[in-house]
Amino acid sequence: MGVKKRLAFIAHASPFNADQMGDYLGKLTPKVMLSVARMLSKKKFGLSLLEMEEESRAELLKKLSDREVAQIISSLKSDDATDLFHSLEKTRTKRIMKLLSEKKLEEIRPLLRFEEETAGGLMQSEFVSVKASDTVSEAIEKIRECKEAEEIHNVFVLNSKKELVGVVPLRKLVTAKPSEKISRVMNRSVISVKSTLDQEQVAKKFKEYDLVSMPVVDSKNKMVGLITVDDVIDVLEEEATEDIYRLAGVPEEESVFSSPSFSIKKRLPWLTINLFTALLASASIAFFENTLAAMATLAIFLPIVAGMGGNAGTQTLAIMVRGLALGEIRVEEYKKALKKELFVGLANGIITGLIVVLIVLLWRNTLVIGIILLLAMVINLLVAAAAGTLVPLFLKWKKIDPALASTIIITTFTDVFGFMAFLGIATVFLRLGWLG
Amino acid sequence: MGVKKRLAFIAHASPFNADQMGDYLGKLTPKVMLSVARMLSKKKFGLSLLEMEEESRAELLKKLSDREVAQIISSLKSDDATDLFHSLEKTRTKRIMKLLSEKKLEEIRPLLRFEEETAGGLMQSEFVSVKASDTVSEAIEKIRECKEAEEIHNVFVLNSKKELVGVVPLRKLVTAKPSEKISRVMNRSVISVKSTLDQEQVAKKFKEYDLVSMPVVDSKNKMVGLITVDDVIDVLEEEATEDIYRLAGVPEEESVFSSPSFSIKKRLPWLTINLFTALLASASIAFFENTLAAMATLAIFLPIVAGMGGNAGTQTLAIMVRGLALGEIRVEEYKKALKKELFVGLANGIITGLIVVLIVLLWRNTLVIGIILLLAMVINLLVAAAAGTLVPLFLKWKKIDPALASTIIITTFTDVFGFMAFLGIATVFLRLGWLG
Repeated sequence: MGVKKRLAFIAHASPFNADQMGDYLGKLTPKVMLSVARMLSKKKFGLSLLEMEEESRAELLKKLSDREVAQIISSLKSDDATDLFHSLEKTRTKRIMKLLSEKKLEEIRPLLRFEEETAGGLMQSEFVSVKASDTVSEAIEKIRECKEAEEIHNVFVLNSKKELVGVVPLRKLVTAKPSEKISRVMNRSVISVKSTLDQEQVAKKFKEYDLVSMPVVDSKNKMVGLITVDDVIDVLEEEATEDIYRLAGVPEEESVFSSPSFSIKKRLPWLTINLFTALLASASIAFFENTLAAMATLAIFLPIVAGMGGNAGTQTLAIMVRGLALGEIRVEEYKKALKKELFVGLANGIITGLIVVLIVLLWRNTLVIGIILLLAMVINLLVAAAAGTLVPLFLKWKKIDPALASTIIITTFTDVFGFMAFLGIATVFLRLGWLG
Repeated sequence: MGVKKRLAFIAHASPFNADQMGDYLGKLTPKVMLSVARMLSKKKFGLSLLEMEEESRAELLKKLSDREVAQIISSLKSDDATDLFHSLEKTRTKRIMKLLSEKKLEEIRPLLRFEEETAGGLMQSEFVSVKASDTVSEAIEKIRECKEAEEIHNVFVLNSKKELVGVVPLRKLVTAKPSEKISRVMNRSVISVKSTLDQEQVAKKFKEYDLVSMPVVDSKNKMVGLITVDDVIDVLEEEATEDIYRLAGVPEEESVFSSPSFSIKKRLPWLTINLFTALLASASIAFFENTLAAMATLAIFLPIVAGMGGNAGTQTLAIMVRGLALGEIRVEEYKKALKKELFVGLANGIITGLIVVLIVLLWRNTLVIGIILLLAMVINLLVAAAAGTLVPLFLKWKKIDPALASTIIITTFTDVFGFMAFLGIATVFLRLGWLG
């Protein structure tokens, strides 16, 4: 089978969904990528584009004519079309809008107004609505007319002002008498969200109520769109990636095979911040330069106090950040959380500190340095508990993502306090003649 | 309103779902918890129990009679009932099984065989199945008979051997003629999973194909259960929590308000491992004790090389672990990934190293130490790139969770190599008379 044929085969192979196709395309050279992509149906092309990495997508879009992009956008559902619009360059958006049909524009235009990370940014404008006075068979007729019927699970009941007054799950329509009025089969308590709600909150609601789709309303309770559970799954993955990346000091947009120049540029800011926090740690050691000159051996033990504090702080931080994301803790509960973490830090500081006393006694034949380490470790694990608890809760309170309290910030606290505690106590011991 | 009345109100307030109720119960004192929980319907009680933390759940279950537990289990769907069974003590399981009806036992028993974290462990045994020779109206009749109809989105078509041969989405049933044969409306390409498949893979399949439910088959393609998207959302959250926790060295079971004794016990093992890795770093400094004795000032700069390496390694690690979880990279691509990361490490090492040269020149008025730092940082950022890339990929290859390559492991590499590189080069420079 020749290359071209093989590519055509891959492009049409039905088990290859958009997700896999996006990954696959991103790994091809730009030229081959373009020729494979053009073999796809416009819809599959569009969905694959959305699944690709930002960088490859931008590259591929640049190579397509405005006409092609317009055709792709026309083939997509309104929410996907809007997402693709958002990834176009501003100057191009207007040119492409002129190439779209009036109907498509009507669907997309209202969606473009919403922030990408809100309910409005997630929703599609296609949904099936009926009136309470309609009959079941009239509702079924509406479903039949709807092209996107594939993904219909609920029919929404609107009044004359387009306000949401009820919902009818499909299985109720299936089992109801055709002549029955919708008002008699509909469920009046509908769980909906405002279009401005943050996507993380939307996901929480889906999770709490085990939903497969949820209507979105505007400030006047007028139904404006529908969010489906597949979009929510994407949100959950996005938010988890964001948290993991932020905790590790990685800009969220990066992935394994982003281009090196992209990765260098993106990681450099955090590394530079880390450089300055490391200098802060250095300065706290420099403060005790005389002590170190008097007893260079002390330098050997610097990583222990700092490392243990950094590790304990990271543990606390991860638990707080995840607890905030999952709604296990509210900011007002900071006292309760702090009390617990301080207690845990104290206990683990004493236990691991005693192990250190023993090891240092065996390794270097000194009890005094072991005791200094024990004291410094207890202090530093308390600092770690306080920083790991309070920094993310403080950020949350200030409406900043708590995951930005990344490991870098917490380890700055534990480095500085760890070195100060250890060298400070050692200095006092030296002056008292207990050491050396 | 008295306490009792208020509690009763809260217990029945409809906006309070099981998720919230579980959280709420976990925060009460054991005695109040029990009295509030008993006000709930058995089903809501059961669902709330499942949403509670392990610790509180065990405590509450202990206080309930076998009879109560059996009633609660009887009120739940098979997958939830099985989950509750799994959280009972072994000795109690048998006693409670005797109290269940024959029908309930039949539903639950096959599910108890499956590992909790597989498709079989996620699925419920309730689903609606029809024969290809049935008519649409016969299928609708079956849905009407099904008690759990709330969550039906698809009807599955089985042959005489109970093998899965097709699927009919509800909207097809809605819009088809009642007299039509199922064989004419069914979709023959059904996406299903084997009962032994890992839950992470199950979630991936839901995501790729935008599903709301998926049938589970045994090794002979016989349909044995159904997984619904709400269970998949729980899996995604679980897996994300697990990754975040493992990267930070936290045992996965812990949450913000686990009891202090539980937290101390759970975190201690990782802290102890960290203690020994920190001692390894100390030993690598001790190796250069003479150099430090000759020039104690060098100790000041120890945190910079180690810290920068640790941070760069953490960035790479997070990207690899997430990339593996999301399927962005396969183990075989290790060369490509390593090449990229080494290049990024080299570039960022040189850039941040040059910044350090400048700062040290201004701060301590020495160019030589700056140059040593630059060289050591470049070496250490290369070590960080290699460890951050290869350790998680190696674990994945060995079928171990790559997130277990937690920050602790990576920073051990960067600490040891960072100290060795910096003090090693300084020792050479000292001997050559270039330093001090």
